[in-house]
Amino acid sequence: MKIGIYGYGNLGRGVEDAIMRNKDMSLVAVFTRRDPATLKIASENVPVVSTNDILKWKNDIDVLIICGGSATDLPEMTPALAENFNVVDSYDNHSQISVHCKNVDEKALKGKTTALISCGWDPGMFSLNRLYANAVLPDGSDYTFWGKGVSQGHSDAIRRIEGVIDARQYTVPVEEAMDKVRSGLSPAFTARDKHKRECFVVAEEGADKEKIRQAIVTMPAYFEPYDTTVTFITMDEMKKYHSERPHGGSVIRTGKTGKEGCHSHVIEYKLTLDSNPEFTGSVLTAFARAVYRMAQRGDYGCKCVFDVAPADLSETPRSELIAHLL
Amino acid sequence: MKIGIYGYGNLGRGVEDAIMRNKDMSLVAVFTRRDPATLKIASENVPVVSTNDILKWKNDIDVLIICGGSATDLPEMTPALAENFNVVDSYDNHSQISVHCKNVDEKALKGKTTALISCGWDPGMFSLNRLYANAVLPDGSDYTFWGKGVSQGHSDAIRRIEGVIDARQYTVPVEEAMDKVRSGLSPAFTARDKHKRECFVVAEEGADKEKIRQAIVTMPAYFEPYDTTVTFITMDEMKKYHSERPHGGSVIRTGKTGKEGCHSHVIEYKLTLDSNPEFTGSVLTAFARAVYRMAQRGDYGCKCVFDVAPADLSETPRSELIAHLL
Repeated sequence: MKIGIYGYGNLGRGVEDAIMRNKDMSLVAVFTRRDPATLKIASENVPVVSTNDILKWKNDIDVLIICGGSATDLPEMTPALAENFNVVDSYDNHSQISVHCKNVDEKALKGKTTALISCGWDPGMFSLNRLYANAVLPDGSDYTFWGKGVSQGHSDAIRRIEGVIDARQYTVPVEEAMDKVRSGLSPAFTARDKHKRECFVVAEEGADKEKIRQAIVTMPAYFEPYDTTVTFITMDEMKKYHSERPHGGSVIRTGKTGKEGCHSHVIEYKLTLDSNPEFTGSVLTAFARAVYRMAQRGDYGCKCVFDVAPADLSETPRSELIAHLL
Repeated sequence: MKIGIYGYGNLGRGVEDAIMRNKDMSLVAVFTRRDPATLKIASENVPVVSTNDILKWKNDIDVLIICGGSATDLPEMTPALAENFNVVDSYDNHSQISVHCKNVDEKALKGKTTALISCGWDPGMFSLNRLYANAVLPDGSDYTFWGKGVSQGHSDAIRRIEGVIDARQYTVPVEEAMDKVRSGLSPAFTARDKHKRECFVVAEEGADKEKIRQAIVTMPAYFEPYDTTVTFITMDEMKKYHSERPHGGSVIRTGKTGKEGCHSHVIEYKLTLDSNPEFTGSVLTAFARAVYRMAQRGDYGCKCVFDVAPADLSETPRSELIAHLL
């Protein structure tokens, strides 16, 4: 399976690492909007190519993994590329997924390609677990807890405040809330009940730290609905203690069965990730395998993780999966 | 969707409960090998029919959920019924699944039906999570912990000992072993490291309890490889404290990504079930929906949970799943 990576940031590097760990795949090229000569990638003997030349690679790539941002890149990139390539993206703007799917579907059907969108862990593995748990326990309640982990969006929001040089925001689930759900109860929560926000901020010299703190904790939607702590640190501390990108969380469903719902059940799917971009890259890569197989069967159009039969994700032949993993 | 239940023990009752919770399904008949007149079922206005008359119902049932035992019932029942019905079973003899699949496939292809085998939570939901986690993290280790829960097979093994009237065996995971895995390590375990066995036994009056205890703890394969405790109780205590069928467990995969595997990831899928047969019945029922849809598309033959696209499990239309659950 010949894979291309389109975009080489943290996620692109995560995909590259994952491809090396999958023996049935090889990375054939990395595409970049930057000057290819300036980009050093981890793989040896793999060309770095300008995105302007992508169409020359149409017959040499089985699946293109698009590693752009959801805000502005993917809504343009994925439909455009799906006309000529089988693709996978990690579009994560939940409220716009239906629109994105429609745009991608049109181009993929036109180009006879298979295009899987919104892959990763949320949306992605968490979505799958919400679906399975809902199908199995129709009478129940869903809970998603995120963290402890770095939220890029919240970190960016702090960086836009005057006087801030750098910032890192950790989303932290409230353990007491998780324990309540795990005990089989179906409590109603406010946003504040479920998550805390911990912010680490490097301020400009002489900046009014109390003013920055106030600007953070009162920021609507981002911080105001949560208990938020702000800790000022030096740039050295930021680099030393906050350079990793851990994340994770839990999808939990509690449900009832039996006479008058006398029996409770708890289904929990929990991720504890040292590196968010590397894990996300690993998920995209596994689904690239399925996309390749679906395209070979002529199953074209826009797909999501809900459309993929799990056997298509594995390097192992189906007969061996049935014999050894079932 | 018109569902039939074939066999009305604990599992059959669990399926019946699940059907009532799925609005797009109705139970049309329960089939029994007993005298139908002697069987009282929970559903009102649903006929109880002798298994001898099953073929008369060929055109009135969309999917038949087979609730027999894996030891002797299902190897015969599932292939025979698959020739005339779309079916789901919970065959759980892991070492013989490939043989069972082959036998069922032959009959299902002949009869143009869809037959899903080995559904439930293990095999079933646990298998799915093993597959997803292996596909996403190819460099890693798998761990399955069962319990705390009642093992029917181990309880039966105790009941066969002379002087035993009744017995209940709980499989208990060793918390320290689970914590070690959850911390991201990939330890090697013996059977004893991972699980303990707790036995509650009602002995005949005057029986040699120490002899019974010895017979249990030295029993090869079943108890000898584990730390096993034996507690003698009265029949009243058995009925009062051990009449429920709780179970559960965790499938955990730890894996590495990044330069020289510098980042660890832990994926855990955990079930905490008040009622094993009711939860298993709920899984069978969700997959019956997928079987119906696959049969309508002409996707015939023997299937397992690995072959089912998750969207097919849900009552909710795909467009709504994409808009709201992805």
